[in-house]
Amino acid sequence: MKSNLLEYINSPIDLRQLNEAQLPQLAQELRDFIIDIVAVKEGHLGASLGVVELTVALHYVFDTPNDLLLWDVGHQAYGHKILTERKAVFHTNRQLKGISGFPKRSESIYDAFGVGHSSTSISAALGMAIASNLKGDTEKQHIAVIGDASIASGMAFEGLNHAGVTDANLLVILNDNAIGIDPSVGALKKYLTAVKKGKNHRQNNMIKSLNFDYSGPIDGHDLTTIIKELKRLKNVKGPKFLHVITTKGKGLQQAEDNQVQYHAPGKFDASTGDLLPKSEEHLPPKYQDIFGLTLLDLAKKNEKIIGITPAMPSGSSLKFMMNEIPSRAFDVGIAEQHAVTLAAGMATQGMIVYCNIYSTFLQRAYDQVIHDVALQNLPVIFCLDRAGLVGEDGATHHGVFDLAYLRCIPNLMIYAPLNEIELQNILYTVQLGINQPIAIRYPRGRGEFIDWKSLYKKIPFGKAICIKEGTSIAVLSTGTIGNNVIKAIERLEENSYFAHYHFGFVKPLDETLLHAIFNQFKTIITIEDGVVTGGFGTAILEFSASHNYQKIIKTLGIPDTFIEQGTITELQYACKIDVKSLKDFFSTHKIS
Amino acid sequence: MKSNLLEYINSPIDLRQLNEAQLPQLAQELRDFIIDIVAVKEGHLGASLGVVELTVALHYVFDTPNDLLLWDVGHQAYGHKILTERKAVFHTNRQLKGISGFPKRSESIYDAFGVGHSSTSISAALGMAIASNLKGDTEKQHIAVIGDASIASGMAFEGLNHAGVTDANLLVILNDNAIGIDPSVGALKKYLTAVKKGKNHRQNNMIKSLNFDYSGPIDGHDLTTIIKELKRLKNVKGPKFLHVITTKGKGLQQAEDNQVQYHAPGKFDASTGDLLPKSEEHLPPKYQDIFGLTLLDLAKKNEKIIGITPAMPSGSSLKFMMNEIPSRAFDVGIAEQHAVTLAAGMATQGMIVYCNIYSTFLQRAYDQVIHDVALQNLPVIFCLDRAGLVGEDGATHHGVFDLAYLRCIPNLMIYAPLNEIELQNILYTVQLGINQPIAIRYPRGRGEFIDWKSLYKKIPFGKAICIKEGTSIAVLSTGTIGNNVIKAIERLEENSYFAHYHFGFVKPLDETLLHAIFNQFKTIITIEDGVVTGGFGTAILEFSASHNYQKIIKTLGIPDTFIEQGTITELQYACKIDVKSLKDFFSTHKIS
Repeated sequence: MKSNLLEYINSPIDLRQLNEAQLPQLAQELRDFIIDIVAVKEGHLGASLGVVELTVALHYVFDTPNDLLLWDVGHQAYGHKILTERKAVFHTNRQLKGISGFPKRSESIYDAFGVGHSSTSISAALGMAIASNLKGDTEKQHIAVIGDASIASGMAFEGLNHAGVTDANLLVILNDNAIGIDPSVGALKKYLTAVKKGKNHRQNNMIKSLNFDYSGPIDGHDLTTIIKELKRLKNVKGPKFLHVITTKGKGLQQAEDNQVQYHAPGKFDASTGDLLPKSEEHLPPKYQDIFGLTLLDLAKKNEKIIGITPAMPSGSSLKFMMNEIPSRAFDVGIAEQHAVTLAAGMATQGMIVYCNIYSTFLQRAYDQVIHDVALQNLPVIFCLDRAGLVGEDGATHHGVFDLAYLRCIPNLMIYAPLNEIELQNILYTVQLGINQPIAIRYPRGRGEFIDWKSLYKKIPFGKAICIKEGTSIAVLSTGTIGNNVIKAIERLEENSYFAHYHFGFVKPLDETLLHAIFNQFKTIITIEDGVVTGGFGTAILEFSASHNYQKIIKTLGIPDTFIEQGTITELQYACKIDVKSLKDFFSTHKIS
Repeated sequence: MKSNLLEYINSPIDLRQLNEAQLPQLAQELRDFIIDIVAVKEGHLGASLGVVELTVALHYVFDTPNDLLLWDVGHQAYGHKILTERKAVFHTNRQLKGISGFPKRSESIYDAFGVGHSSTSISAALGMAIASNLKGDTEKQHIAVIGDASIASGMAFEGLNHAGVTDANLLVILNDNAIGIDPSVGALKKYLTAVKKGKNHRQNNMIKSLNFDYSGPIDGHDLTTIIKELKRLKNVKGPKFLHVITTKGKGLQQAEDNQVQYHAPGKFDASTGDLLPKSEEHLPPKYQDIFGLTLLDLAKKNEKIIGITPAMPSGSSLKFMMNEIPSRAFDVGIAEQHAVTLAAGMATQGMIVYCNIYSTFLQRAYDQVIHDVALQNLPVIFCLDRAGLVGEDGATHHGVFDLAYLRCIPNLMIYAPLNEIELQNILYTVQLGINQPIAIRYPRGRGEFIDWKSLYKKIPFGKAICIKEGTSIAVLSTGTIGNNVIKAIERLEENSYFAHYHFGFVKPLDETLLHAIFNQFKTIITIEDGVVTGGFGTAILEFSASHNYQKIIKTLGIPDTFIEQGTITELQYACKIDVKSLKDFFSTHKIS
């Protein structure tokens, strides 16, 4: 691909030297640049392709970085990054020590706010706009670009509700493509669709009801229209709302046709759009599929079973049940708070509810877990996918706080399976009947066994297991990181020193076994793929203190700092919980 | 007061024996009953007075408890409690081992869902309604009564957005009195006010846009109208929305005229409504006023200072600043998520933002604290009022999880002052400049000193202090519970054994002092008014383990169970952290 314009554009200052007539060509070049690099380096594709024209127009019309531009979630910000001094490093996107896949304040002055979780942009931009007013700067523009899936989340409504009664110089741009990662859902989506079809809503609509100056919908791929409207809005004071219609994946036919798959397609052929074949046949299954397929199987046999996902039917694999038993499997949109309390409501009526939420997103529903589920001791089953380090999505997405923030909640059981067999079995066990809520956490990625299907076995609540006997040091792990421990011990030249115990249950702890361990061993090492501050290892410290044991206890896990992106293996290495680091740690302790 | 009808009504079954013509009299008796008891026993008054007619009508028309009735937040459920088998125990409301001030599933079959925090009712009722559909019960009614302040919170929007695309048999009743605890705010409130004034919104309104069958607004004190409309709605399938206009405090003139004060007025004269004089003159100040007055004072001198409260201007005492410097003090409504990210946005522009949120309500914005503030290391100042045990509001309102759920967040400092002097000084210190966020937690209730005003002193970050030297045992406390420790040690006959250290900073810990303590003492006792699972004591255990100390460490605090209502003293006693329990505990340890 020969680039004529993009080659000379490193920042919006360069962009603003162009004639408006040159912008369609630039947009095409930008689109090609994104496709060429993402095809090879992987990443989020469809969202950024959909806003190429909008991105060009925004930086052309507004005085970034002086004007403040916020991208909600940030999947769509690749074009923005390329136009704002990061063209040369864009190939390092999402890699260890490379640029982040999301806007990030510490990375660029053009990234006005760090994002990753949805629906924060209106609140943050409003805060900036109010600050500008207070500083007497009435010219500065504050722009939040938010998708139709994200604007349906409660937090976005809270932002709109406040903004509507201020005189803040805020422009909310709704990037309406009728899809988030999966297709958008809910009454607002239905309403927006009607608006797009011109169904008599333009003059008297919801957004106007919230006191915004509403305009649109306009074609988000027509640069002339967008630029004209942005220029007009630049001179409108107070809260403004522009409704822009875009197509996710715009410009790559396959991405337009298969929007879910091309959200983050992996490697593909840049010229044809064809996905490169993955040789997945001889790989163990993904944990998400173990969840999705097992739940489907259980739900077929037990009609009280319900599945809920907040906007992650594909990512959680709840789609299997949604396809086959749609009456009992619900995608509620980006609404974690609602998802949890909806589950609680269902549980009061005797339903067996599997509420699947990524570990990092359960942070959005923390109060609901405490107040609506645990306090009432309702037997909701939380399935926390993407627990632990998640890799390339980075700091905003690691599910490393869950053990710490859940462990302090009374009534709540916490279980982390060692592998996919245990995941299946706990999913089976809980629907046989529990008297309290449980959180089951499991990681992104694949399990241990190619042949993973097995007969269900009941898992006894609160029991830990001995994986390997040993003479001198007890290693206690929870969750799938235990497989690193198994490998690390296997690789030791002399491993009879080490006993290894798997604590599936972080709460309640197997105190009987713990007493046996503490009576036998002087040194105990705990390992988890969550934060060491307040996590599983800390639970062991609390047990030890409450029973007056005086032992040497080493707690390994994620240190008290935010972990950036990289492959999971690279990040495990950084946290010293990869197989080699564990082996080295064990060796040192054997000698000492 | 002589009761003719209410005397014979113990449950809705009795109520439904009455003629419709008798209901106004019953409503009057119910209102008098509430006034008579709350006048003496204290509690929440205004909200329940406002829904007396609605309460009578709901139980008259619907087949409770078979039909499921949910009260959002639950301040307004006193009439409901009295009509549902709890008339005889209503005088125990909010007392230790009495009935809860909020609906509670374990208390009554008529309490379909436990509440306390706002905006959960739509999600929970929808869950119940979907469950009923799945069970083939299409007759069962599911009713959520929600106020106009609560419906403006994002979670309520999420519930409406989902419900609108279901065929669930859900009735949402908006109890619109234009006030929560403080007057409602925001664009939705403005819109609802316009609707009430008949401004052309009836036929094409926001709620209809979300696919609800909307009716109203109707007069919520006119029993004939309400009953007629509820009977009609009973036969309408799918999601329905009834807009009811009520007056908070209805029927007690002073409560109608002073709605904020009479939300929970304390003791008053039942016949006149006059508040009974409180002799507050010689009492130490409330911590909330220390916050409110100190912030006002600081804000007058530093124009970068901003205050934010989500719907608690009175409770947090931010009202002082809102009254004097309205341009920099914001009540954003029940929108904790928005409040935190708004603060983050302001902080990016160099503002010094004090974001005041009750400890229990910060659970609503946990992800925003992690993702929008701490990850970006923005120096937002969180002021967590009502930390620790709060007393009569009970299990839904205790601020006991904060140390555990905040301690695992990187970059975040956590400080708990010993008294109001330290609270003033930390509020002063942080506006001099911090490079990271901080959470300052302090309790409900009053401080230690009648003359509390003092010259500001800078508090050194991360430093703990020795309150009392001792020979054998080190007592480490954080926050105002340290005053119990001081008194307990004073009351010991021989107290030279005990050293007492105050750790204002739970994070970062004063490791220098800790090393000195651990080198000097064999036994260490930690005391906090938060959960012992993952809290301050646990932080000390983590320090000890990471430095290979082998000590006896006892961690005292809130046990791993939900604590019900009672006076703070009663609850401290139940948790063994009251002065006498601590003294006894110390005595035992001195002897052993």
